[in-house]
Amino acid sequence: MKKTEPRTLSGFMELLPNEQILFEQMKKTIEDTYQQFGFLPIDTPIIELSEVLLAKAGGETEKQIYRFQKGDTDLSLRFDLTVPLAKYVAKNYGNLSFPFRRYQIGKVYRGERTQKGRFREFYQCDIDIIGDGELSILNDSELPSIIYTIFKKLGFEEFTICINNRKLLNGLFEEIGQKENSTEILRIIDKIEKIGKNAVIEELKKLGINPENINKIITFIEIKGTNEEKLQKLEKLNIKNEQFIKGLEEIKQTLKYIGIFGVPEQNYKLDLTIARGLDYYTGTVYETFLNDYRELGSVCSGGRYENLADYYTDKNLPGVGISIGLTRLFYKLNELQLIRANQKSVSKILIIPMLENLEKPIKLTTELRNLGIKTEIYLSDKKLKTKMKYADKLQIPYVIVIGEDEIQNQKVKIKDMKTGEEISAEFNSNDIANKLTNS
Amino acid sequence: MKKTEPRTLSGFMELLPNEQILFEQMKKTIEDTYQQFGFLPIDTPIIELSEVLLAKAGGETEKQIYRFQKGDTDLSLRFDLTVPLAKYVAKNYGNLSFPFRRYQIGKVYRGERTQKGRFREFYQCDIDIIGDGELSILNDSELPSIIYTIFKKLGFEEFTICINNRKLLNGLFEEIGQKENSTEILRIIDKIEKIGKNAVIEELKKLGINPENINKIITFIEIKGTNEEKLQKLEKLNIKNEQFIKGLEEIKQTLKYIGIFGVPEQNYKLDLTIARGLDYYTGTVYETFLNDYRELGSVCSGGRYENLADYYTDKNLPGVGISIGLTRLFYKLNELQLIRANQKSVSKILIIPMLENLEKPIKLTTELRNLGIKTEIYLSDKKLKTKMKYADKLQIPYVIVIGEDEIQNQKVKIKDMKTGEEISAEFNSNDIANKLTNS
Repeated sequence: MKKTEPRTLSGFMELLPNEQILFEQMKKTIEDTYQQFGFLPIDTPIIELSEVLLAKAGGETEKQIYRFQKGDTDLSLRFDLTVPLAKYVAKNYGNLSFPFRRYQIGKVYRGERTQKGRFREFYQCDIDIIGDGELSILNDSELPSIIYTIFKKLGFEEFTICINNRKLLNGLFEEIGQKENSTEILRIIDKIEKIGKNAVIEELKKLGINPENINKIITFIEIKGTNEEKLQKLEKLNIKNEQFIKGLEEIKQTLKYIGIFGVPEQNYKLDLTIARGLDYYTGTVYETFLNDYRELGSVCSGGRYENLADYYTDKNLPGVGISIGLTRLFYKLNELQLIRANQKSVSKILIIPMLENLEKPIKLTTELRNLGIKTEIYLSDKKLKTKMKYADKLQIPYVIVIGEDEIQNQKVKIKDMKTGEEISAEFNSNDIANKLTNS
Repeated sequence: MKKTEPRTLSGFMELLPNEQILFEQMKKTIEDTYQQFGFLPIDTPIIELSEVLLAKAGGETEKQIYRFQKGDTDLSLRFDLTVPLAKYVAKNYGNLSFPFRRYQIGKVYRGERTQKGRFREFYQCDIDIIGDGELSILNDSELPSIIYTIFKKLGFEEFTICINNRKLLNGLFEEIGQKENSTEILRIIDKIEKIGKNAVIEELKKLGINPENINKIITFIEIKGTNEEKLQKLEKLNIKNEQFIKGLEEIKQTLKYIGIFGVPEQNYKLDLTIARGLDYYTGTVYETFLNDYRELGSVCSGGRYENLADYYTDKNLPGVGISIGLTRLFYKLNELQLIRANQKSVSKILIIPMLENLEKPIKLTTELRNLGIKTEIYLSDKKLKTKMKYADKLQIPYVIVIGEDEIQNQKVKIKDMKTGEEISAEFNSNDIANKLTNS
């Protein structure tokens, strides 16, 4: 028979089981934390009507969309979880309780040019809190404590949640008469990490901003010191613009309560350079960096927006949210060996029968499973060596070999595959479970 | 601004949060059970090259495929999890340990005509055990114990796992000289539940089978009694065909060990009428029915196949697997009110601050979360009535209102929202956690 080469599309992550185990553990850590903070699950389709999904989209994103016809219907694959959330909330408004706290973890699709570490199919892990008409600024302080909890649980210590408020920047732009250019200026400032200060100044010049005002912008984004010192310097800029003053008030409040929500001081800071390129955000913005791997980019980002769903509904739905791009994060952490896919099996015990009649080994297996112990039994008729090799290759922690002797004496030996040590136990599931707990 | 109507494609399930909570619980029960039995997770892309995905497909399925061009590439969305598994095993053969036990839970796509209870996007929850060259028949006995464990955990008692072996049927067809017609005959027999015995006889006549042989087929599928009696009647048919004899041996062995794997006698039976329409299966086949809701169709099906991946590789990879179509199952059980989406919140406690300074309520919230208690805090500045209504609507089990008195006296009352009862506790997370455990 002619064979088709079994291959996976480039830009689509497909992991070996040991990597997948680790990926699932990380996903579960994120999901459990979202639940710990009282967020509700939702699950929206991957395929939507193009008319609905692209109601708000445009520019770069639209080019990347997977869009196609099925029969007469114009369909698209979702490119994020925010637009589906907007649709969901607008559609189900009457059936939801506000503030609506939801999480969604799922795959999204962007037909980017393929390059190393860039994915066309990737998991986003999102939470958002949506208010009906209003949403307290205190919610902006709660989200960093969720980011903090997750990255701690994932085993990181040295990371910084950077916080800014778009009203500060927008107010500054208004103050210097550059309101119309604000999106463009934000885009330029956002690149300062990548291209450096001088290149930013050059780009601002090209926009036609005069040196004095460029100086104000640069002075602003170069404000340094502790959070407290930065806030004082912002006050001293003496900007009278209303939006700026509101932003300053908001960021003060936000920073104060982040600590109260339990985030240690070394894990968050006011960073006036982050803006999140998108036009979308209107208040608080977040980016999160691993201190020693800033080149990795932000591992968790988000922010506050005025109105989630204005393309679908007249209701005013302000919100604040964050997103973790898990596929890229996993790829990068794995590449840097900051995580290790050491676990090759989910089973704790492998039962190896060396008998004609498998009745007793199978019964023991079932009993162990019923006690909640992840157990496998090797069912094929092979040599002991082959069976042990299977346990070795999968690094199953414990092995119990059952032959005629074990049946007759009603005793087994639990072999610890790491140390080689053997623990004696009665031929019954409870005693085996006890011995494992104590070992 | 012109509004786009926020709507979801028909045939795509999108649940409200309370239903989603239940759906996620069912999914988790299935996943936990798969892990309990030592299956490894894999996650393959939803999009594959059409050439790879459709290497084996044809007929009905191909018409339903979501297939489209992106640039120069011919892409398709997966329509099941078996073809991606075949690709995965063929591609990663050298990196896997056999028998390879994998589970995969994910969405698949079929552009079926929309009708009530039929979905175009739906979850499949699959496990398969793949052997390298051979796979012991004992594995066929292990799978029913997994089905049994899952449906028990989902709260069902009255269900039956129906088991048959395709070699019996195929051997019978060979014996009566109808080997060429076997796929067609299987398709007809498979409908006996739906169309009745007489209609089956008519359809068999149309195939040109003589009355004597039709009689043999009907006698065969009408064999009744206990498993033991059925096996005896099959022996008495005195069919000499080699395949039939092999099938009889296999089904005897399979049935014997299903009991040993812990499935009670009332939950499984030999059912000679089930064939699973697909050409694909070559040995054991499974279907699972809720006894009182047989019209629901099989809620978990599968079987044994000779060769998983012959379109991709020369390796001989026999396997056995089962699949649960979770989306349809959820829909049907919900419709029949056999499951109830009662839980509207994941949180256990809602903290309601009635103070200017939220420092202490927030600190308590963080401490409760750190103790692993799912906790929410109501952050917006509203009247107590509005805040209590939120707790009521989401049916959050416990509420703690914190005002100046609670701060001053360092005491709180934990209100049980179901009974209205109030439990007194110290104003600290440990005491609150203790009181909740004991209540």
